[in-house]
Amino acid sequence: MSVPADAAANPVVPLYPILYEDFVRRALAEDLGRAGDLTSDSTLPPGVQAEARMVARAAGRIAGLPIALAAFRLLDPAIEIEVRAEDGRDVEAGTVLAVVRGAARTILSAERTALNLLGQLSGVATATRELSALAAPYGARVVCTRKTTPGMRTLEKYAVRCGGGHNHRFGLDDAILIKDNHRALAGGLRAAVVRARQTVGHLVKIEVEVETLAQLQEAIDLGVDVVLLDNMPLDLLRQAVALAKGKCLTEASGGINPRSAAAVAATGVDMISAGYLTHSAPALDVALDVVEG
Amino acid sequence: MSVPADAAANPVVPLYPILYEDFVRRALAEDLGRAGDLTSDSTLPPGVQAEARMVARAAGRIAGLPIALAAFRLLDPAIEIEVRAEDGRDVEAGTVLAVVRGAARTILSAERTALNLLGQLSGVATATRELSALAAPYGARVVCTRKTTPGMRTLEKYAVRCGGGHNHRFGLDDAILIKDNHRALAGGLRAAVVRARQTVGHLVKIEVEVETLAQLQEAIDLGVDVVLLDNMPLDLLRQAVALAKGKCLTEASGGINPRSAAAVAATGVDMISAGYLTHSAPALDVALDVVEG
Amino acid sequence: MSVPADAAANPVVPLYPILYEDFVRRALAEDLGRAGDLTSDSTLPPGVQAEARMVARAAGRIAGLPIALAAFRLLDPAIEIEVRAEDGRDVEAGTVLAVVRGAARTILSAERTALNLLGQLSGVATATRELSALAAPYGARVVCTRKTTPGMRTLEKYAVRCGGGHNHRFGLDDAILIKDNHRALAGGLRAAVVRARQTVGHLVKIEVEVETLAQLQEAIDLGVDVVLLDNMPLDLLRQAVALAKGKCLTEASGGINPRSAAAVAATGVDMISAGYLTHSAPALDVALDVVEG
Amino acid sequence: MSVPADAAANPVVPLYPILYEDFVRRALAEDLGRAGDLTSDSTLPPGVQAEARMVARAAGRIAGLPIALAAFRLLDPAIEIEVRAEDGRDVEAGTVLAVVRGAARTILSAERTALNLLGQLSGVATATRELSALAAPYGARVVCTRKTTPGMRTLEKYAVRCGGGHNHRFGLDDAILIKDNHRALAGGLRAAVVRARQTVGHLVKIEVEVETLAQLQEAIDLGVDVVLLDNMPLDLLRQAVALAKGKCLTEASGGINPRSAAAVAATGVDMISAGYLTHSAPALDVALDVVEG
Amino acid sequence: MSVPADAAANPVVPLYPILYEDFVRRALAEDLGRAGDLTSDSTLPPGVQAEARMVARAAGRIAGLPIALAAFRLLDPAIEIEVRAEDGRDVEAGTVLAVVRGAARTILSAERTALNLLGQLSGVATATRELSALAAPYGARVVCTRKTTPGMRTLEKYAVRCGGGHNHRFGLDDAILIKDNHRALAGGLRAAVVRARQTVGHLVKIEVEVETLAQLQEAIDLGVDVVLLDNMPLDLLRQAVALAKGKCLTEASGGINPRSAAAVAATGVDMISAGYLTHSAPALDVALDVVEG
Amino acid sequence: MSVPADAAANPVVPLYPILYEDFVRRALAEDLGRAGDLTSDSTLPPGVQAEARMVARAAGRIAGLPIALAAFRLLDPAIEIEVRAEDGRDVEAGTVLAVVRGAARTILSAERTALNLLGQLSGVATATRELSALAAPYGARVVCTRKTTPGMRTLEKYAVRCGGGHNHRFGLDDAILIKDNHRALAGGLRAAVVRARQTVGHLVKIEVEVETLAQLQEAIDLGVDVVLLDNMPLDLLRQAVALAKGKCLTEASGGINPRSAAAVAATGVDMISAGYLTHSAPALDVALDVVEG
Repeated sequence: MSVPADAAANPVVPLYPILYEDFVRRALAEDLGRAGDLTSDSTLPPGVQAEARMVARAAGRIAGLPIALAAFRLLDPAIEIEVRAEDGRDVEAGTVLAVVRGAARTILSAERTALNLLGQLSGVATATRELSALAAPYGARVVCTRKTTPGMRTLEKYAVRCGGGHNHRFGLDDAILIKDNHRALAGGLRAAVVRARQTVGHLVKIEVEVETLAQLQEAIDLGVDVVLLDNMPLDLLRQAVALAKGKCLTEASGGINPRSAAAVAATGVDMISAGYLTHSAPALDVALDVVEG
Repeated sequence: MSVPADAAANPVVPLYPILYEDFVRRALAEDLGRAGDLTSDSTLPPGVQAEARMVARAAGRIAGLPIALAAFRLLDPAIEIEVRAEDGRDVEAGTVLAVVRGAARTILSAERTALNLLGQLSGVATATRELSALAAPYGARVVCTRKTTPGMRTLEKYAVRCGGGHNHRFGLDDAILIKDNHRALAGGLRAAVVRARQTVGHLVKIEVEVETLAQLQEAIDLGVDVVLLDNMPLDLLRQAVALAKGKCLTEASGGINPRSAAAVAATGVDMISAGYLTHSAPALDVALDVVEG
Repeated sequence: MSVPADAAANPVVPLYPILYEDFVRRALAEDLGRAGDLTSDSTLPPGVQAEARMVARAAGRIAGLPIALAAFRLLDPAIEIEVRAEDGRDVEAGTVLAVVRGAARTILSAERTALNLLGQLSGVATATRELSALAAPYGARVVCTRKTTPGMRTLEKYAVRCGGGHNHRFGLDDAILIKDNHRALAGGLRAAVVRARQTVGHLVKIEVEVETLAQLQEAIDLGVDVVLLDNMPLDLLRQAVALAKGKCLTEASGGINPRSAAAVAATGVDMISAGYLTHSAPALDVALDVVEG
Repeated sequence: MSVPADAAANPVVPLYPILYEDFVRRALAEDLGRAGDLTSDSTLPPGVQAEARMVARAAGRIAGLPIALAAFRLLDPAIEIEVRAEDGRDVEAGTVLAVVRGAARTILSAERTALNLLGQLSGVATATRELSALAAPYGARVVCTRKTTPGMRTLEKYAVRCGGGHNHRFGLDDAILIKDNHRALAGGLRAAVVRARQTVGHLVKIEVEVETLAQLQEAIDLGVDVVLLDNMPLDLLRQAVALAKGKCLTEASGGINPRSAAAVAATGVDMISAGYLTHSAPALDVALDVVEG
Repeated sequence: MSVPADAAANPVVPLYPILYEDFVRRALAEDLGRAGDLTSDSTLPPGVQAEARMVARAAGRIAGLPIALAAFRLLDPAIEIEVRAEDGRDVEAGTVLAVVRGAARTILSAERTALNLLGQLSGVATATRELSALAAPYGARVVCTRKTTPGMRTLEKYAVRCGGGHNHRFGLDDAILIKDNHRALAGGLRAAVVRARQTVGHLVKIEVEVETLAQLQEAIDLGVDVVLLDNMPLDLLRQAVALAKGKCLTEASGGINPRSAAAVAATGVDMISAGYLTHSAPALDVALDVVEG
Repeated sequence: MSVPADAAANPVVPLYPILYEDFVRRALAEDLGRAGDLTSDSTLPPGVQAEARMVARAAGRIAGLPIALAAFRLLDPAIEIEVRAEDGRDVEAGTVLAVVRGAARTILSAERTALNLLGQLSGVATATRELSALAAPYGARVVCTRKTTPGMRTLEKYAVRCGGGHNHRFGLDDAILIKDNHRALAGGLRAAVVRARQTVGHLVKIEVEVETLAQLQEAIDLGVDVVLLDNMPLDLLRQAVALAKGKCLTEASGGINPRSAAAVAATGVDMISAGYLTHSAPALDVALDVVEG
């Protein structure tokens, strides 16, 4: 496992539109409602053209630009789109991310949907980049969780990648994560791990949540792939890392934030995970400036 | 127009399930993926029952409890649900919001979806309640914007109501909001307002964004219903309120947050609106404690 | 409020295709079923081309032409479409509305879906235009209701606009309309209006149904935006209009039809509303003439 | 082929809910929009119960009662529904068709959707029954066409059966209907019929549109199952019926309406078909009377 | 009724994309999941182009080529597709069916979806062609059943046509097939047929399953269109065919397979039907060879 | 990794209905079409009840029984269902799997959909069980592939588990499988593996397809989790297994079938994978016997 190179060396692979176009269509439909854009439809003279610049009002890491721009395209294929920025890159406040040209009506009708998408996803990316920068010096990866906005798992996981982070499980079905409840209800960790191995496919990794060194040792003895060191004080965390070194990967979680991240990463854990990246990161401030009628 | 009474006197009207069940189903499906909950399915012995408590880890205003609990019900109609809290009420940290009983497998499989829904919506409600408390002494309403999470407009607007706030437009189609771009592209405010009145239905109100007192006076002269006083310094805001008093409703926006809200409300505006309530409010910390196997 | 200028001065703003393409796709799929067009597929030699003219067999007001033509385009993007008429305009019997050229198979397979859409929507527009012509001399607007064909609210409201009418509420969520049942169950009109104002957003207008002058006076005193004068005899209607003049808008409903419309409009009401425009207007007779193989 | 017995002897077979529940859900969602029923939600005190009677304001043939009532049930499973009428039966003006009891809010929120469904479908059934009564003395069946409201094919065809009519094709894929365009483009009727027989399954009947006796003779010689005698004068129609007797079924179409139906049926045709039954029948006047709070 | 000419003379009519594109999109989405193609996305350098050949590894009858190729197009409209084969034709092992050129990533991501579609449908066509070849010398048609893969009725019925077979019913709603259960529950065949004729439309044929000559005679006397001779020994089948000759069509079913088909067809039945064509035919072995990076 | 215990010791975990109910609804809708079950609706007298037994006509391994029975329940919640067998168990020919009681109409309308689901999935399970029995003595697991029926990935993977097999990847997004094309386009295996590790999450395993011992050694040196030994002769396979022993898991693929399985398993590979289990397994013969009217 290795920490990702910087964005320049390791460009983010774009999502296939088939993975987000229906989502964007639903977002547009949610805003247009049954009657469409009453304001633009009634106030703009027919045929008015406009040019508008999508701008980052604050500095941050961009994520979701092609997704946001799809809002214009899906509303009106005749809109011209000039892309000036790239997902996975940092921008300064004031950077023009894209320029759209075409019917003023379309541009104003799609504006809010596009900005909501871009602001939300860039907010996730920006928070992830901040945390990654703190963890990287120690060789620790930043990973997200399943604490995502309902309906946006694919997009928010993508935004995490744009922020230089890595993805944890995408759902309940792509890896095993044995938590304390599973352990208790299964009659102990050994029983849980044995049953899991007997049942699931050969490409499914097993991660186990542990809270004590004794639990950690048991997990190591069972040969699990990853241990989730949950809410451990830094001192205990260091001991856990030492114990696990070379035997399984280590992930620290619980109270990870920009204030704590460096100290946690410095313990030598392989990964630090944080739910706030997807459930509480503030949106990046983005806007659309109409520059010409 | 009047500021809402407190929650006890003015209970939140629940959403019809038809307005959110498909959303919850999609959220569950997003987490279960193609293979379902590999961990619970493989580690739990068949037939294990459990009881779990949904708990607020932090104090806050609850929103979305019936929506979150639908995750359990939609996965397994046999789950027993005991509701102990109510949307639109404040709870202390540690409050048990609901107790669910039934198949341990179902409870653990639905857990994350339920918590994501409840945490996100209660986060919106909690931020709204905080702002409302600051604005209420001055008789100002807190209103939300269209800067919502894509796909969650109905739910987040509901959460704003749970927080004691009021809703602004639900979309582009339920009111007219003439912003500077419309004004410019329409050839002036008068032309825009005249065209709008000529075109749209008799139940559509007209709000106009203004930045100067001259613009405000023009809007008043045109008889618009509401003016959006955007990013005005407090002093200018006070003058605007005085000018508009008795002629149209006034809404202040731009940089509204818990630090600025009281001062803005003190200017006498009828409403203060804030996008961060829906796009950047941190999730409320909620958890599920399995208490018994 | 003002009566719309004629169609030439006030062109109908087209719907974004995103608001109807799924509906047209479902209509096509409903006709094609599981096996497609057995007749055309089996009888036409491969590769046969055709040209066909979409014609109005009767005089009327056109609505839905781009929607109807989408049926050809969605079935086969290679179909050439020449549009010769415009939504919101009157046509004589025999007018060619559009010419389509391409695979004969596609043209015949999409024919019925296209005609059903155009005929139904132009029927609504034609009935609306007829009523509008009767009301216009008195300065009264014609407005539609929520008595629309299930699933076609957006399209039929659009057709009403094409007919020179105006839209009433699009649904239960874009304005308040307090009817007698609400009044009775709420414990009187005052209680109902107070609760409504306390609860809903500042951009929501309130309309109240009244049947007597006393009720009308109460509504005026409460400052409601619009009164719905339901089923009032002409004489009472005139008194109501006089009472409401300058205080709120007046809408007459109940038994409005081409025979009664002028007399009702002559009372001075601002609007007359009629459910039959959307639930019972006969379809306009439109046809597709294949002119060349 | 035989004319259907009266409704009492030949009850209409109800549709499986799986064939209409999604349609009713979409209709409800279309009316509730994003915010739900603002009026009922804001004006009604919590917990108010009501009883309401669904009433036929005019005499007619009922169709769609279970479909309309599903609107209440799908909004709130706790609503009690007492069904007092039956699809496929005639009712007098004033007849109570069903009584619903439960939350006043639900009853008022579902009212319009339920009435729109019932009114539209009963309108189709009533028009069909009227035509059937005229045709029955001559042993002729009334059949509908594919000129249905987009999205409502299944429901309107059902309403035709409720009206005592019979269904023509449900779509392009359940029978062959060779019209003049097919004949011309295929290079003659013989070529068309031969190709059709060679291609389609053994359970697909072939109907051919004819306008002259020569065309009719050609169709008979080719052994087609049904001929569509389009727009023939009565005299020609009688000759056509005589020629076809015992060789194929005869269907008359074109200008069939209550004024012409008896005369056309009297020619001895097996069926008369009319598009207006589904595209232009006025809705039956139905209402919901709230009788008790 | 006539046996179809060979493929060259009777080309298969292609399905409209509207009938399968959603199915292909769902198939792609099912394979891409929430994260997309991890392997291609992570291992391929950005911008790598490729050319790939879709090849038949075994000889067979092709069906579904345009459907399979839609997988590439729907994932990325920029993929170039060169079609080298045609549905409804036989190919040798090794035949290149199509060449696709474009982003290597797209080609590899769509590969499995495309091959699954093509392999499954060509498997159906190949099995059908084999059976058709055995039945054709005796003038018997091969027909499929409703024993299709859930969700693939339209596509598998099309594949049967590609194999030179004919389609039986597409569902429960396009023809009557009275089986022994219906006969028993209806109180005898006569009652069943009379009720059916009284009820259903004039374009619905009636087929009756019979097991004895007495039942066959009863069906003939009732004038049914087709008899299904189920599981009859060859000798009995021959007698049945003799009895039915010129009175109704005959379809043999039960245990039809390549070993029995010729003997059954030799009895003179009009059709032989076999469920295995759609539920148990092995997929045709097709592959994608990447020829150039 | 261990071979699964027999079915008695290791019961199959049922799928949540949310994972298949929409699929069953679509399958029912596909069969009912627009008009429903013409035969049952027209021939059965109203109110006829029936009891029917779902029976295995051939011996096999059952999969999908709850899924098949959902067809009855979703069509009519009043149908009584008595389940007599269990997914993941073997049954003899003639075994009654379930008894359904209720409206004869519902039972006959749902019959084919239920049987198609059960037959198809039990066919997959039966083929898997056969292969598993051959591989188990050698401690080898049987695993499936992504060569599944489009739209049925979740269900067929479940059927494989019912057959005692294990699941390979569910899609392109839950594990890395580097095939020869990826290797070539990435510039060699090392580059591919390094890029993959750098990019994807820590719970994603890497499998590599190898064809020679040199490739195998390279994969082992890179520390991959699993090697896919594709189309190797038995002798080479044995050498590969010896080389990989203790270093990574080994999966044999290519031409695995009941004739070859034991010999391949005897080489000591950990897994044998076979596409035919899902794309070409014949359906199990199941039927519905109506026993009582």
